[in-house]
Amino acid sequence: MTETADTQPGWFSPEELENIRGRIPILYVQAVPVRVDEVGQVTHVGLLMRADPEGSFHRSVVSGRVLYHERVRDALLRHLEKDLGPVALPRVPASPQPFTVAEYFPTPGITAFHDTRQHAVAMAYVVPVSGDCQPRQDALDLVWLTPEEAVSSQMREEMTGGEDTLLRQALAYVGHAP
Amino acid sequence: MTETADTQPGWFSPEELENIRGRIPILYVQAVPVRVDEVGQVTHVGLLMRADPEGSFHRSVVSGRVLYHERVRDALLRHLEKDLGPVALPRVPASPQPFTVAEYFPTPGITAFHDTRQHAVAMAYVVPVSGDCQPRQDALDLVWLTPEEAVSSQMREEMTGGEDTLLRQALAYVGHAP
Amino acid sequence: MTETADTQPGWFSPEELENIRGRIPILYVQAVPVRVDEVGQVTHVGLLMRADPEGSFHRSVVSGRVLYHERVRDALLRHLEKDLGPVALPRVPASPQPFTVAEYFPTPGITAFHDTRQHAVAMAYVVPVSGDCQPRQDALDLVWLTPEEAVSSQMREEMTGGEDTLLRQALAYVGHAP
Amino acid sequence: MTETADTQPGWFSPEELENIRGRIPILYVQAVPVRVDEVGQVTHVGLLMRADPEGSFHRSVVSGRVLYHERVRDALLRHLEKDLGPVALPRVPASPQPFTVAEYFPTPGITAFHDTRQHAVAMAYVVPVSGDCQPRQDALDLVWLTPEEAVSSQMREEMTGGEDTLLRQALAYVGHAP
Repeated sequence: MTETADTQPGWFSPEELENIRGRIPILYVQAVPVRVDEVGQVTHVGLLMRADPEGSFHRSVVSGRVLYHERVRDALLRHLEKDLGPVALPRVPASPQPFTVAEYFPTPGITAFHDTRQHAVAMAYVVPVSGDCQPRQDALDLVWLTPEEAVSSQMREEMTGGEDTLLRQALAYVGHAP
Repeated sequence: MTETADTQPGWFSPEELENIRGRIPILYVQAVPVRVDEVGQVTHVGLLMRADPEGSFHRSVVSGRVLYHERVRDALLRHLEKDLGPVALPRVPASPQPFTVAEYFPTPGITAFHDTRQHAVAMAYVVPVSGDCQPRQDALDLVWLTPEEAVSSQMREEMTGGEDTLLRQALAYVGHAP
Repeated sequence: MTETADTQPGWFSPEELENIRGRIPILYVQAVPVRVDEVGQVTHVGLLMRADPEGSFHRSVVSGRVLYHERVRDALLRHLEKDLGPVALPRVPASPQPFTVAEYFPTPGITAFHDTRQHAVAMAYVVPVSGDCQPRQDALDLVWLTPEEAVSSQMREEMTGGEDTLLRQALAYVGHAP
Repeated sequence: MTETADTQPGWFSPEELENIRGRIPILYVQAVPVRVDEVGQVTHVGLLMRADPEGSFHRSVVSGRVLYHERVRDALLRHLEKDLGPVALPRVPASPQPFTVAEYFPTPGITAFHDTRQHAVAMAYVVPVSGDCQPRQDALDLVWLTPEEAVSSQMREEMTGGEDTLLRQALAYVGHAP
């Protein structure tokens, strides 16, 4: 799972966060941005292009940590704004029920999800976005793909840590399973 | 369950529909209209005031039949427009997964739901509405209530057929269970 | 969508049912039978082999109509017993919330689902089965497949009407999306 | 939210855990144990009687922390066994989708849930239990209540931190909203 540096830094030193990450599961939210038509049907799904610290590129959905004393829906909105810009107009769902819970383990193979840095547990939501998206920070680009394009083998290869599985789960949840 | 006359009449004569209603379950959709704040939290729920053929009044959510060759999301939008007017701007959910399925039996006591006319099975959705609502047809009025107001004993008494149960299920689904 | 002859016939003559099928949506339930391990994780999914009237074969999940005055959970149990035999020990879910609603249209392309005979709307559930399954009636065989095997291109080709999509949605819902 | 001492202590000293609890949200699971009939309908809900350190008593559902490198379903099973004993035969759901996410804040009023010690985020599940329950450790007693009894004003008063809200959400999810 990839996310930008936290927008509220300073609560932990990098060493402290590193230490905690090796000892308790860290709570995340993930949002799959979608475009919907006038009856709510998903027509496109948004994927971010990000650069790794090593200089390679991959596609990802919106992800980030839930901070202390922050509501899940506030964390969702904060990370959506961080990655999609201030005028994306995301519609965070009314219900806190996620479409799935993705468990990222530092050890591969325990679940479909994997994160070398930590044990992260992400509540995942589909979020319709109706405004203008301007990828920011480490999100270099945003592409809108049809459900069929989003599950192509090329996109699969450009996603890491099992996010291609999360994307297919999101599409299945909205009635698509191409 | 109360709903207005179908907006696409003529597919059955009243006698035919009556006959079918006594022999197979009829598919319905129900929508609980809500107002949400900027992070998607439900602040108010909308209840319609309707007149019974007998001249009494009761509160209800948006309900109606799914027609032949009509998608569930098209039926939802049609009934929302029928009851709330053309500029209510309802956001039909991206996922077809309803928050519950309400089974209305002609015999009371089998489930929490009851409809003397028929065996109706309703897929129920919470639908955020951001526009101006103008109740139409047999919907005489629309009131926006806080979750606490919506579950008051007065409102309970003004709802029929178990719709007060459906309303509490909708509120529970969006994180409220007052 | 394929299902056996109804186990409670005689409510409609074949002509009557045919007539109704062309005029209102028919309510169905579908169940994806699964084997789970001791912590509830799905290990295998069950697919029935059925014979078409034309003599060809295909794979399918458990499907059938909800009858007048029958609860959804009773319909689920009845169809599971009909297809898997009396000692399959299915565990019908506690919640009426289906993992998806599959809309089968007589016209292909409106949704991912298609049924030449009718407009059927199916509430779909994943049902763990712990007993001995003995396929009956027109279900010739039952095979238990791993999630990976169940989404193979061979299985895809052996399913009709979009049931391969339903199967992938079921697997996505239980955390698998191979 | 109340839970017993962790069954795998020693990963943190009490001081370390205290320190972390004031700085990041802690991931929990909660399970509402239920008895179901042969078609999966919930007939009774199980509530534990616990003693507070201060010597007072209250009712609660099964709750506990998710440990580092532990799957959510393993955490659910561990806490169910801890509270209900080794032969309760809980059926952890096949899907990771919780019926709700309960956010316990140290500050009251932000959500319906409150925990003076920490910011805890709990994924909540309904878990059918078919075996013999023997409350253990700090769970002094277990009572099985009908849905109507479970939402009585007496039970409401005997629950703390908003768990009465969680219980009503669980009942609404399984089709009851008395």
